[in-house]
Amino acid sequence: MSPATARISRVTVTPVAFADPPLLNSVGVHEPYALRAIVRVDTDEGLVGWGETYADDVHLERLTAVAAALAGHDAFETERLRRVVAGVLGSGTRGGDGVAGMITGASAVDRVFSPFEVACLDVQGRAIGRPVVDLLGGRVRDAVPYSAYLFYKWAAHPGADADEWGEALTPDQLVAQARRMIDGWGFPAIKLKGGVLPPDDEIEATRALAAAFPGVPLRLDPNAAWTPETGIRVAKALDGLVEYLEDPSPGIDGMARVAAEAPMPLATNMAVVAFDQLPASVAAGAVQVVLSDHHIWGGLRRSQLLAGTCDTFGIGLSMHSNSHLGISLAAMTHLAAATPNLTYACDTHWPWKTEDVVRPGVLEFVDGAVAVPSGPGLGIEVDEDALSALHEQYLRCGLRRRDDTGYMRRFQRDFERKLAFW
Amino acid sequence: MSPATARISRVTVTPVAFADPPLLNSVGVHEPYALRAIVRVDTDEGLVGWGETYADDVHLERLTAVAAALAGHDAFETERLRRVVAGVLGSGTRGGDGVAGMITGASAVDRVFSPFEVACLDVQGRAIGRPVVDLLGGRVRDAVPYSAYLFYKWAAHPGADADEWGEALTPDQLVAQARRMIDGWGFPAIKLKGGVLPPDDEIEATRALAAAFPGVPLRLDPNAAWTPETGIRVAKALDGLVEYLEDPSPGIDGMARVAAEAPMPLATNMAVVAFDQLPASVAAGAVQVVLSDHHIWGGLRRSQLLAGTCDTFGIGLSMHSNSHLGISLAAMTHLAAATPNLTYACDTHWPWKTEDVVRPGVLEFVDGAVAVPSGPGLGIEVDEDALSALHEQYLRCGLRRRDDTGYMRRFQRDFERKLAFW
Repeated sequence: MSPATARISRVTVTPVAFADPPLLNSVGVHEPYALRAIVRVDTDEGLVGWGETYADDVHLERLTAVAAALAGHDAFETERLRRVVAGVLGSGTRGGDGVAGMITGASAVDRVFSPFEVACLDVQGRAIGRPVVDLLGGRVRDAVPYSAYLFYKWAAHPGADADEWGEALTPDQLVAQARRMIDGWGFPAIKLKGGVLPPDDEIEATRALAAAFPGVPLRLDPNAAWTPETGIRVAKALDGLVEYLEDPSPGIDGMARVAAEAPMPLATNMAVVAFDQLPASVAAGAVQVVLSDHHIWGGLRRSQLLAGTCDTFGIGLSMHSNSHLGISLAAMTHLAAATPNLTYACDTHWPWKTEDVVRPGVLEFVDGAVAVPSGPGLGIEVDEDALSALHEQYLRCGLRRRDDTGYMRRFQRDFERKLAFW
Repeated sequence: MSPATARISRVTVTPVAFADPPLLNSVGVHEPYALRAIVRVDTDEGLVGWGETYADDVHLERLTAVAAALAGHDAFETERLRRVVAGVLGSGTRGGDGVAGMITGASAVDRVFSPFEVACLDVQGRAIGRPVVDLLGGRVRDAVPYSAYLFYKWAAHPGADADEWGEALTPDQLVAQARRMIDGWGFPAIKLKGGVLPPDDEIEATRALAAAFPGVPLRLDPNAAWTPETGIRVAKALDGLVEYLEDPSPGIDGMARVAAEAPMPLATNMAVVAFDQLPASVAAGAVQVVLSDHHIWGGLRRSQLLAGTCDTFGIGLSMHSNSHLGISLAAMTHLAAATPNLTYACDTHWPWKTEDVVRPGVLEFVDGAVAVPSGPGLGIEVDEDALSALHEQYLRCGLRRRDDTGYMRRFQRDFERKLAFW
């Protein structure tokens, strides 16, 4: 056959905003809009590939700077693209200010490279007529199970009408939220975002969920809101109730202290978010499950490297989610389908979103799982009108970085971020 | 474009034997023939892909059993093929008896899977018209430097005429061998296979090489022939003369003891030859450089996993070689070209061989480096007549497993294998 070619002609980065409910966490509450950056790679051959990532302003500036440097490169040569990213960012750049969320210490190069790598893999797949999963060694499963992601939440953003989910501040309300999630999407596992109420309240909520959904794997994630002493106490109280406890306490030291006495595995997407944090974590026995995230760890192939490293060092593997759209869900699904040791249901914020840039139809949840798209590349199609509309919404909404804390303080002036707080 | 398809129709395994000079090592001497197994994957579409591996009888039996189970599979779904290999071999199979060389403890699944993965990547590349390197993230270098591989050797196999290299038992003879290698191939580094003479003789030889080739990186590999005490003594004697010292002493414990006092990095392809040996080695600080080998570590993608793991844990990366033909040299070159942290020149036995199954012309050494083949797949073509001839030679020669020790004892009845001997 004639060689598959994919010479990058143009790369565009489009920030978008999509409506987000008032979901509570340890640092505040989700603003009315979540921000994402949509990366589009065009090639000389007329191929188009897509990637998706965070869109906080510093990160967006970096993405835009890199996008301008990629034309002329070969979309099959992603390692060289990674070097371009490193060159544009300059050596020694760290991620502290790139994304305003709770994940710090990640590699800025990996975070900036990720959506371009995904878009290039999308292009490669379209160039050869194969799904992205086949560029990663092929599928080991045909559908990827996801977890119901429960949040404490307000009934509505202040001043707005109540959303369809309503308030969730009590165990009963959380159970109702979980029921709706499982009835609607069929999720085989449940994750509760904690760190919102005092630990004993969240223990009570977890017990209520365990009682209401016997046999369904449960997880609780307080985003390091507890001291190690509290982490140990909660861990012992939840013995037998959760499959893992996520980020009870901050840092590798804090996690190691809890892990030494916790009866269940500890998971993280905060203490270990970059390859250079793995050695210290392994030496300390700090975490038993790493939540991978291709947005943070440098794309799909480096997430496979993380997966293999976890397998080698006897660390379990799950998958983290930030509020995302369909491009990321497709990428997560292709990656997860190719990852043998991803034995936990992946996180997703999917049910919380009411808008998208992807045409509906491909990414359906059946029994809580998404079938690997069978079309070439990521297998999804972007709706250009929807993309334009969400970009207009980005321009209109005025948000330029995620600031759960600032938003919360508009309504609760003395709100404190909960880091090792309780 | 129409989808690239590659449905496996037939897999054949052909053992071959090629003439090998009487190269000495710690366990004996190379026999007159080295054995290799050539794997050929045919697809419904008429594509052909090639792989190459060891051919000791137990390994060959396993390869043949797996080959019979692969028809009907998709050559893009290599992770599923790996599961087929694991299924055929049965759980818990270890590599001790699969290959008769000095590498024990490796994963039989990884070792058996490797040539099939390489052949499938060759098929994939041919299906899409791209070189294998582009299936691995693309090249970070256009040519891969290799190292001159010096051996103590006899002038000839007993009873045969002297080969063109002649005897090498003294420092002067080794220097002449190195001169010929560097003049002929341009190698930018030198490795001496040691463990043959008492350590002080090998120190003297290494000093002679360092004096004759100032500025050329040197390595000495006695294949664990020394006790840790001797390893420490030799390491100190070679301070400043070698870029790394390879396998001075056996096992992770032995290596760790030497590493604690050696002034240079220690490398291994004996103490750590499988992923499940990495955690103990990391914990002990046993080795500073791992010699990867796609034949041992489960193919090209798992060798990338090894490379990334080494990068994460601050371990250097080099590449091991066993006596090999052109299919393996092509695979090694594609892999090395895609591996950013492979900063040492790779080992190769290339100059020692006078026969091959690949057509000449693609794999040329220029300044000691091999340019990444630019054709689709591995970029090499197998000469069917040459393959048949070397298969006939396999049948004729009667060797069915490597036995350097048994061969040596035919000429020196009291020969002892040198493991922690000196």
